[in-house]
Amino acid sequence: MTLFTGLSAFPITPTDAAGHVDTGALARLLERIHLAGVDSIGLLGSTGGYAFLSRGERRRAVETAMGSVGGKTPVIVGVGALRTDEAQALARDARSAGADGLLLAPMSYTPLFEEEVYQHFAAVADAGQLPLCIYNNPGTTRFTFSDALIGRLSKIANVAAVKMPLPQEGDFAGEMVRLRAETPRGFSIGYSGDWGAAAALLAGCDAWYSVIAGLLPSEALALTRAAQVGDIAEVERIDQAFQPLWSLFKVFGSFRVMYAIAEALGLCRADPPCPILPLPQSEMAGVKNALDRVLG
Amino acid sequence: MTLFTGLSAFPITPTDAAGHVDTGALARLLERIHLAGVDSIGLLGSTGGYAFLSRGERRRAVETAMGSVGGKTPVIVGVGALRTDEAQALARDARSAGADGLLLAPMSYTPLFEEEVYQHFAAVADAGQLPLCIYNNPGTTRFTFSDALIGRLSKIANVAAVKMPLPQEGDFAGEMVRLRAETPRGFSIGYSGDWGAAAALLAGCDAWYSVIAGLLPSEALALTRAAQVGDIAEVERIDQAFQPLWSLFKVFGSFRVMYAIAEALGLCRADPPCPILPLPQSEMAGVKNALDRVLG
Repeated sequence: MTLFTGLSAFPITPTDAAGHVDTGALARLLERIHLAGVDSIGLLGSTGGYAFLSRGERRRAVETAMGSVGGKTPVIVGVGALRTDEAQALARDARSAGADGLLLAPMSYTPLFEEEVYQHFAAVADAGQLPLCIYNNPGTTRFTFSDALIGRLSKIANVAAVKMPLPQEGDFAGEMVRLRAETPRGFSIGYSGDWGAAAALLAGCDAWYSVIAGLLPSEALALTRAAQVGDIAEVERIDQAFQPLWSLFKVFGSFRVMYAIAEALGLCRADPPCPILPLPQSEMAGVKNALDRVLG
Repeated sequence: MTLFTGLSAFPITPTDAAGHVDTGALARLLERIHLAGVDSIGLLGSTGGYAFLSRGERRRAVETAMGSVGGKTPVIVGVGALRTDEAQALARDARSAGADGLLLAPMSYTPLFEEEVYQHFAAVADAGQLPLCIYNNPGTTRFTFSDALIGRLSKIANVAAVKMPLPQEGDFAGEMVRLRAETPRGFSIGYSGDWGAAAALLAGCDAWYSVIAGLLPSEALALTRAAQVGDIAEVERIDQAFQPLWSLFKVFGSFRVMYAIAEALGLCRADPPCPILPLPQSEMAGVKNALDRVLG
């Protein structure tokens, strides 16, 4: 089993209003994910709010993770930043703290050209000296990777995986054939977008980078394992139970909904970073109903 | 003449590779803009690379500006940030340093909802206590303002202006009629997108937020003044001379081209912040030819 295989769980990073990480709450979330037996943790992903945290707080989050689940469940750390030198520093911080892998999105303000993304990734992969996953998330970065660019990036030392958004037409198999033709043997192709995970896993992707697994790791793992053994009926049963949650993710954005789920489950009480607003209190009943469907 | 009227010039912020502002070079650019007689300076706009600079460096840039042109040409300072508390701190910094106005874009990582943008603007306008211009720039922020949201924002204390992108269909007059119906009397409506400035000014907008005026202030001012007196032939003559520069802006992005223009004019030698790459050296001849067309 390589690092970028199976189920990767993306927790929120609980903070106070000033952006200081609540390390106790984070450790509790991570311990729970570890006990569920997922394959890896995606710390400081988009769901982990990396874009809203200072370098110092991101370092604290990684140190907390390594102190709680280091050596037990592999930890992949998001190191995206608007400046190349900052992303390099974050990659070095993650490595120093003992992280197992890196996740890098081409965050941008000025829209980036392909060559700029290429050189940015090469610089960060070299600075980090850890297996790195390309974080392809046009919804947050506005950058669209071409197959050819993913191919070029996959040949850079340390670049070992890509985390793809759901394909527009839902053609996972076709997309994976195209990407496998552009990338070296063993290069990992995984998906994010929880409501497409069942289809992606059944089509044979290497990894599910899962938001919901950050808070419902056992249930997401059950779906993953059923897909890995080809139990289509069980995959569909679990995915069906998740449907009300997927609907909330689509309407409100998974980032906002995850904070509400954490509160509903009694795991932690934190708000997303302003300007992101918490879900209206009036939606909490819907969140609880959706959770009941999954937790039975 | 109010703050958000006429020609506002947006300089680059020269820095070294580590993101430290070259205050001497910045002061020279600002002094030159002041001497040309423009109506205001848009410091730390998108062209000023605000998104790539730390709070400390942004404060140094504002202090440099106030030390060189403060009290002579009004200075409007970009205070956008991903976190609301950071944008508030930047607004307070700008006010402490003596800035005349603020410019706020809804920078985002997680795509923002209208209510989040509304509350973000209200919080920053309250913290800054200076006239504030809504920076509507979907090309960098991905957030699209509805007319209704601009209307709501225009009623917040201190919110005095909007900087619009070029309308899709080029219908400046129609857009301004719609926006004037939503906003209070005296609320300023200006445009950015240099290649549309001639049409925007002739259609009666209040302000041109100009990238090129950051380096060619006299020439941009000549276009502005000709438009303000309705001299259509002169506006078209000057706009025609700018066409090769507008083409470069469209192909390479004005941010990258501005660094090349600064070098070609011998004003300063700085590179854009990585991951943004400088224009290839092979394009410098084209930049010089385009400048010759404007400078005769």
